[in-house]
Amino acid sequence: MSKKIFEIQAKCSKSKARAGVVKLPHGEVKTPIFMPIGTQGTVKSLSRDELEKLGSQIILGNTYHLWLRPDLDVLQSAGGLHKFSSWEKPILTDSGGFQAFSLAKIRKFSEEGVTFSSHLNGEKRFLSPEESMRIQTVIGSDIALVLDECLPAEISKVEARRAMIRTRNWAERSRDAFEKLRHETGHENNLFGIPQGAQFNDLRVESAKLTMELDFPGYSIGGVANGGEPEEVMYSQVLEQTEILEDEKPRHLLGVGTPKDIVEMVARGIDMFDCVMPTRNARHGSLFSKVGEYGYSNIKIKTKRYEKDFSPINSDSVFWELRNYSKAYLRHLFISKELLAYRLATLNNLEFYLNLTTEIRERIMNDTFDEFWKNYKQIDS
Amino acid sequence: MSKKIFEIQAKCSKSKARAGVVKLPHGEVKTPIFMPIGTQGTVKSLSRDELEKLGSQIILGNTYHLWLRPDLDVLQSAGGLHKFSSWEKPILTDSGGFQAFSLAKIRKFSEEGVTFSSHLNGEKRFLSPEESMRIQTVIGSDIALVLDECLPAEISKVEARRAMIRTRNWAERSRDAFEKLRHETGHENNLFGIPQGAQFNDLRVESAKLTMELDFPGYSIGGVANGGEPEEVMYSQVLEQTEILEDEKPRHLLGVGTPKDIVEMVARGIDMFDCVMPTRNARHGSLFSKVGEYGYSNIKIKTKRYEKDFSPINSDSVFWELRNYSKAYLRHLFISKELLAYRLATLNNLEFYLNLTTEIRERIMNDTFDEFWKNYKQIDS
Repeated sequence: MSKKIFEIQAKCSKSKARAGVVKLPHGEVKTPIFMPIGTQGTVKSLSRDELEKLGSQIILGNTYHLWLRPDLDVLQSAGGLHKFSSWEKPILTDSGGFQAFSLAKIRKFSEEGVTFSSHLNGEKRFLSPEESMRIQTVIGSDIALVLDECLPAEISKVEARRAMIRTRNWAERSRDAFEKLRHETGHENNLFGIPQGAQFNDLRVESAKLTMELDFPGYSIGGVANGGEPEEVMYSQVLEQTEILEDEKPRHLLGVGTPKDIVEMVARGIDMFDCVMPTRNARHGSLFSKVGEYGYSNIKIKTKRYEKDFSPINSDSVFWELRNYSKAYLRHLFISKELLAYRLATLNNLEFYLNLTTEIRERIMNDTFDEFWKNYKQIDS
Repeated sequence: MSKKIFEIQAKCSKSKARAGVVKLPHGEVKTPIFMPIGTQGTVKSLSRDELEKLGSQIILGNTYHLWLRPDLDVLQSAGGLHKFSSWEKPILTDSGGFQAFSLAKIRKFSEEGVTFSSHLNGEKRFLSPEESMRIQTVIGSDIALVLDECLPAEISKVEARRAMIRTRNWAERSRDAFEKLRHETGHENNLFGIPQGAQFNDLRVESAKLTMELDFPGYSIGGVANGGEPEEVMYSQVLEQTEILEDEKPRHLLGVGTPKDIVEMVARGIDMFDCVMPTRNARHGSLFSKVGEYGYSNIKIKTKRYEKDFSPINSDSVFWELRNYSKAYLRHLFISKELLAYRLATLNNLEFYLNLTTEIRERIMNDTFDEFWKNYKQIDS
């Protein structure tokens, strides 16, 4: 039996939403939670102090990127990513499979693993379930993910089934390799399984069941957000799986999504989220902003309408900078390509996302989430 | 008689070095002082809090850049650069002449002023002494500079004399326009004169005298750092002028220089410095680092030797980030072109420069500057 790491503290009476705590080697994570993305061992533009002030409880690292740079030798010498990056709270890493699929120019999948050329220098690398586990053990992730086979958006059912079976086999190899490394090194990190199944609901159900058989302490649901499907399709795909996966294990949804998506997914039983949206949009000058009790809008700060808008970026922020610098000043920084622009916008967007999951959690605790869920929406700015 | 804004608190018994206070509308500036450069209304990559923690007492803005972007209309609406950028301490601006000379692709000088095309969009602009004073008044600089004619590095004496006379005439027009604006708006800002003279010592002496006749409250010595002259030539050029300029007025040296230059120039009677070196070098991964009591070195952080150097960036820093992040981590951020790299390096270099002028000041106060001056040097890292 896998170790129990999740404790449910409250359940919504009108949906599958729940509030809980995930207990990890580097600390407890209160759920639902949004996890900022620190691809290369840094959440772009932010320092540790800022991440802490944001209330970040856990951040993501990307195995593919960290493996190539600074590379395992450096991470091993540093004593893992926590020490290397001075981040003392939990870290989740993906398996590296998605980037090997999406970033590497040349890649070849076989039953054994995936061979690819580094997008940085063309160097040839081989990623297998065993290698991914070795890398994530060196990184020292509190939550590592099994290697899965990532799929293109348009895929036949035959192909999706073949990939699902391979993913199931890789999950087992990942688990066995991870357990062996855990035994050898004595670490107490966790490996999550990845239910897949592309856009086919019966395959997703089957994949969830196959993954459950391998008895992981938690799940990262994959492959629901890369096809550009309509929201409702994605929502139902997730629900198909959360209906099956055990309630007492934490559920992470990979790469999702908009604020609205997060609220909808919590209602369908998801506990943990990661997405590049708040940080990437920030760097393009798109700011999330709360509107009233149930709404949010996107501020396109580079547009002319903010040229003389001397109101604060966000008068409710915990950051002096966001309460005091004006929208007009931030616009000027963006138009002038000044480095401070990216930091201010990133702080703004991550604060928005982390406040959102905090509010969701509070509402589940006092059972007012249902009302929030039904009314929450994007409002044109 | 110009207003007296400078008070000398101590003098070195073995050199022309002095410690003092410059009294400005937005606060007092303790000299000798280094002034970080905030070209476009932001010291690249830093927030106001960080500038304050560094001990920045006064920062620079560039009139040319701010005039083009965000433009005067925005700055006027904001109520000046202090309010626009949330910086409440003193600001010094240059006249815009140097950038019109060095950045604009097409420019034409006449006795009236300089016509140029914006390097941003080609738009035609005309900068005269009167226009520069108008712009700097809108910006609200505590210290504005007269418009001077900037010269190429190689110049004949005939040409240098012609430019010196024009600069003297523009200085008078600048002064008169500034006084008129001061009367109209009621502000209490200051205009500094600029002694010039290129590489010709007799012209520099003449220029200093001509500038003195116009009775400015302080001086910004120009044109000593753009010719790539040997250090000793630059040092003697400055000394020629500080020997003449009244002791009771503050002296700023434009665009200088290395840490060694700063110590040498203080010994020759300079009080205020500005230079892109600490901030620009930072963004290229070159870090200033104190070595022993009298030395400093340049750390090229991107080199392989720092790949596994897990020692702190600077264990003596006031910044948690510099005390805790390792050189290896900073190297990784630079190699990966991560935004945080530029901020950390900028903090490191500005802290080095501001600590240097603080130490110089303390040593003048207790009359141990002479020993520091004679021993201070760059040490190969």
